[in-house]
Amino acid sequence: MATEIGFIGVGNMGGPMVANLLAGGYAVRVYDPNKAAVDDCVAKGASTASSPKDLADQVETVLVCLPTPQIVQAVALGENGLSKGSKVKTYIDLSTTGPQTSVPVAEGLKEAGIVALDAPVSGGVIGAVSGSLAVMVSGPHNDFGHHRPMLEKIGKNVFYVGDKIGMGQMMKLLNNLLSGTALAVTAEAVTLGVKAGLDPKLMIDIFNASSGRNTATETKFPNSVLTRKFDGGFGSALMFKDVRLCLEEAEAQGITMFVGNATRQAWSFALNQGEAGEDSTQIIEHYENLAGVEWPEDKS
Amino acid sequence: MATEIGFIGVGNMGGPMVANLLAGGYAVRVYDPNKAAVDDCVAKGASTASSPKDLADQVETVLVCLPTPQIVQAVALGENGLSKGSKVKTYIDLSTTGPQTSVPVAEGLKEAGIVALDAPVSGGVIGAVSGSLAVMVSGPHNDFGHHRPMLEKIGKNVFYVGDKIGMGQMMKLLNNLLSGTALAVTAEAVTLGVKAGLDPKLMIDIFNASSGRNTATETKFPNSVLTRKFDGGFGSALMFKDVRLCLEEAEAQGITMFVGNATRQAWSFALNQGEAGEDSTQIIEHYENLAGVEWPEDKS
Amino acid sequence: MATEIGFIGVGNMGGPMVANLLAGGYAVRVYDPNKAAVDDCVAKGASTASSPKDLADQVETVLVCLPTPQIVQAVALGENGLSKGSKVKTYIDLSTTGPQTSVPVAEGLKEAGIVALDAPVSGGVIGAVSGSLAVMVSGPHNDFGHHRPMLEKIGKNVFYVGDKIGMGQMMKLLNNLLSGTALAVTAEAVTLGVKAGLDPKLMIDIFNASSGRNTATETKFPNSVLTRKFDGGFGSALMFKDVRLCLEEAEAQGITMFVGNATRQAWSFALNQGEAGEDSTQIIEHYENLAGVEWPEDKS
Amino acid sequence: MATEIGFIGVGNMGGPMVANLLAGGYAVRVYDPNKAAVDDCVAKGASTASSPKDLADQVETVLVCLPTPQIVQAVALGENGLSKGSKVKTYIDLSTTGPQTSVPVAEGLKEAGIVALDAPVSGGVIGAVSGSLAVMVSGPHNDFGHHRPMLEKIGKNVFYVGDKIGMGQMMKLLNNLLSGTALAVTAEAVTLGVKAGLDPKLMIDIFNASSGRNTATETKFPNSVLTRKFDGGFGSALMFKDVRLCLEEAEAQGITMFVGNATRQAWSFALNQGEAGEDSTQIIEHYENLAGVEWPEDKS
Repeated sequence: MATEIGFIGVGNMGGPMVANLLAGGYAVRVYDPNKAAVDDCVAKGASTASSPKDLADQVETVLVCLPTPQIVQAVALGENGLSKGSKVKTYIDLSTTGPQTSVPVAEGLKEAGIVALDAPVSGGVIGAVSGSLAVMVSGPHNDFGHHRPMLEKIGKNVFYVGDKIGMGQMMKLLNNLLSGTALAVTAEAVTLGVKAGLDPKLMIDIFNASSGRNTATETKFPNSVLTRKFDGGFGSALMFKDVRLCLEEAEAQGITMFVGNATRQAWSFALNQGEAGEDSTQIIEHYENLAGVEWPEDKS
Repeated sequence: MATEIGFIGVGNMGGPMVANLLAGGYAVRVYDPNKAAVDDCVAKGASTASSPKDLADQVETVLVCLPTPQIVQAVALGENGLSKGSKVKTYIDLSTTGPQTSVPVAEGLKEAGIVALDAPVSGGVIGAVSGSLAVMVSGPHNDFGHHRPMLEKIGKNVFYVGDKIGMGQMMKLLNNLLSGTALAVTAEAVTLGVKAGLDPKLMIDIFNASSGRNTATETKFPNSVLTRKFDGGFGSALMFKDVRLCLEEAEAQGITMFVGNATRQAWSFALNQGEAGEDSTQIIEHYENLAGVEWPEDKS
Repeated sequence: MATEIGFIGVGNMGGPMVANLLAGGYAVRVYDPNKAAVDDCVAKGASTASSPKDLADQVETVLVCLPTPQIVQAVALGENGLSKGSKVKTYIDLSTTGPQTSVPVAEGLKEAGIVALDAPVSGGVIGAVSGSLAVMVSGPHNDFGHHRPMLEKIGKNVFYVGDKIGMGQMMKLLNNLLSGTALAVTAEAVTLGVKAGLDPKLMIDIFNASSGRNTATETKFPNSVLTRKFDGGFGSALMFKDVRLCLEEAEAQGITMFVGNATRQAWSFALNQGEAGEDSTQIIEHYENLAGVEWPEDKS
Repeated sequence: MATEIGFIGVGNMGGPMVANLLAGGYAVRVYDPNKAAVDDCVAKGASTASSPKDLADQVETVLVCLPTPQIVQAVALGENGLSKGSKVKTYIDLSTTGPQTSVPVAEGLKEAGIVALDAPVSGGVIGAVSGSLAVMVSGPHNDFGHHRPMLEKIGKNVFYVGDKIGMGQMMKLLNNLLSGTALAVTAEAVTLGVKAGLDPKLMIDIFNASSGRNTATETKFPNSVLTRKFDGGFGSALMFKDVRLCLEEAEAQGITMFVGNATRQAWSFALNQGEAGEDSTQIIEHYENLAGVEWPEDKS
């Protein structure tokens, strides 16, 4: 029988990851305050725990996939946190929290005898479901090697970026700076193009055949903006958080980012102009409103 | 025998286009003040003219592919310009000049009885050589239809974006805003990553497997930055010009571009810090210098 | 009897200047296509001319005070321009056109044997009326010395900044960059303060007693923003023009301006969001709209 | 005999304030880990305490003047902090920490039965020595009224901005956003002016006679930049901290700040390019280096 592993945070991202781990032959014990999400995992074969500590009393390896730095900190080091568990030896953080959180959390866990690995992922809900996420791992090389086969159940592209905790987080923040910049500047360009009379779908086709291509033109615009469904599955609040964390690293490391700084501003603008919980692809609506640009009716 | 067409500006971009037109069965008469460039075309089967006017006295259709708005204006409307020619009926501008130039040039040509088409291209020298450029055409639909087969010898992706002159130019400026933003922000991200100890090649591999992918991570970094050859073939001066023209359109049309405005600043910075004639991929060197970041030795 | 001088452009700024010259003992011959403005000057003792050329046939010294670079160029070098006149020897440009215009205009005039002086002014309509403008002169030192007493009728602070034409213009653009930045950032700060519950008048009082003081907090806010009269007398279009010209000089000279570049963006935003002809103090309304901030009722 | 008050943090700013309180008839008991700074106060008549708690056991009113949010938090609520003292009833914070710190600190103190007032100051070391600081107070109106005479010994301009804790801090951050913007953009303008051949002192004189005037042109440039002494007495690190805190408030409140965001970037740039402990007036040196501009020799 397979050794059991633990998983905390089984929402939109974590839930499909658990399904893939189960499908890949792992026994998984989950914890999440959201009962419905837990029930979903149980239906697929997972067992449960009553708290992070309870989980950490029962398994040696715990993966976490959580939305904010504050929650990661509480789950790892809080009152009923993982660090209080008796059995856990390895902690693998799939969340995007930034080095500012992952480094002190790893230090706190180390004091409790637990090894931490950074392992943030890219690819969204689609990637989580299909098991095709990119995983960016940092931490002790041996521990990475040991857990690599398990991580490959989650994402087909597992990258080891260094032995220093925080490097995986940094890598993820850089990636999201690029994707957040692409989405914002593509929204700016398409808004100007629409104002000038160009057809949105045609513009996206041309970008994709030209040097303007990026993941917003390839995926987000065709799926979520041109359709006006705005269902990219990644919120503006998360995008702003990631870009902000990246810029704070840049400020701390002394890197002047002309474009990056503007990307932070663009996402702050989107967040401020939008409704709570808004999808990041809706940023274009705020550019349209600001410019008084009306989206053309679909002629296709 | 094929009807002869004219071509003005047979440099890095125009030269291979002429070769593809010749290979595609067109007779081509060229003009360029650079004799070596003309000789190259002649060796491939082109005939020559002694001035734009001389060319326009001999052919009905003239394509131009020129580096700056000023030169386009002079070639089209100047003393020995195309508009003074007796035979020319159609003018197709493959250059990136922006609507601010292409619209008045088209009006000037119209007074001389010449129809103008915007047809700026994307794809660089590689695309020009392989005939795989994207071509963004605007102008009268009939004229476009008539010349489309010829344009398809130059680029396999020929897009018709509208009947208003300037729309093709606008489309091209938007594309270059996206590519200029991608190159600048990728340079910013990689500089921060290097400072944080990440390997440049690994970063690029991860971006390409993740949502950070763009044409800089796919092509320019692997070919020209990771190799430190900086041979992308598109100068910082041209990039700044295109981004500047795009932002001037945005200002004129009332579109606030948070990111686009910063992209203009980034390329102004690159241009100011660099040597004359610098390749646009060298922008990363200026970020490195500003941050005191040393590029890691290649360990591969 | 005093030698007669010429004056072209007798609007909001030029009109009061002519009045001060007349009051200072100068005979003034004016030209302006606006008949009412000319009549006003005649009522104060001025004589008239029928065109710039006509004026230049009758006087040796001509001052011009005009709104845009295009008009300056036409008045100086156009068909019935000053350069065609037979008597004029000195041209003094009180307009803000930037070195990009003033240098070639001066060269054009030189070919016609006319000496040009840059002499843009700061101080607004209030300063023009009271004769307390700051005047920033560049050009040949002897010519400046000769005309200094006349310029002192217009502005009590006459500064000679260099013998190179364009330096006076550059000085003026730098000044307006500072004033445009002050007005924009004060609008940003007051909007945030109002959102946070602070009283606008109190904020301005505190800025003026602290290190935040600038000419927006000293004059424009007390007179035009706190009163919601928005009657500063200097349009957003002119502010944007001046800041844009300054940033183009910065780009040309290789100076990276973090703040200046954002100031250009702020004024582009104000211009785009506003009505035509809007006063520059109205920029705060656009910040308020964007943030959904309501201006508090006056409790004083 | 006067009731004794407490004062924590007697450095460059706090030291002169204590001197003014002593001169104004107050008995002052001080605490500071820096013995030399304490000795200085004792020499002027102050008594001492061995810790914040010790001080809070002996006096009813404590003023604090500290450099960072972290130190304020520790002094107020830490192990030997004020909140542990038996006698203290009122806490007045003269530091600039931002609402993000002052609000939770006030809540923590409230639980210990201590009333908090925000009272950050503007005016620098010169203002502290001369007792001419601006003081921006928020908190319960009665408590303000009671302590106003004491605060007037510190600063002649005492402003009450509201009863909500954090409003005084917000007011101070807004002020420093304006002063930080003025210093940065003046450095940008003067660097461009020098490149264009203008004399720095003359530029400053003209700004001060024109609409470009601000506290950088009035004080910091004449005293610290034109003299190349760079002794403004306010570090770049503090300036960046204040501007960053202000922008974080703007982001939290949904205010888009075009200029403010660039000001944060400018100070991040200055901090990154500079030596530790650098004076904020040195920001111009980094603009000069970036542009390769050499400061002209003083010809006066």
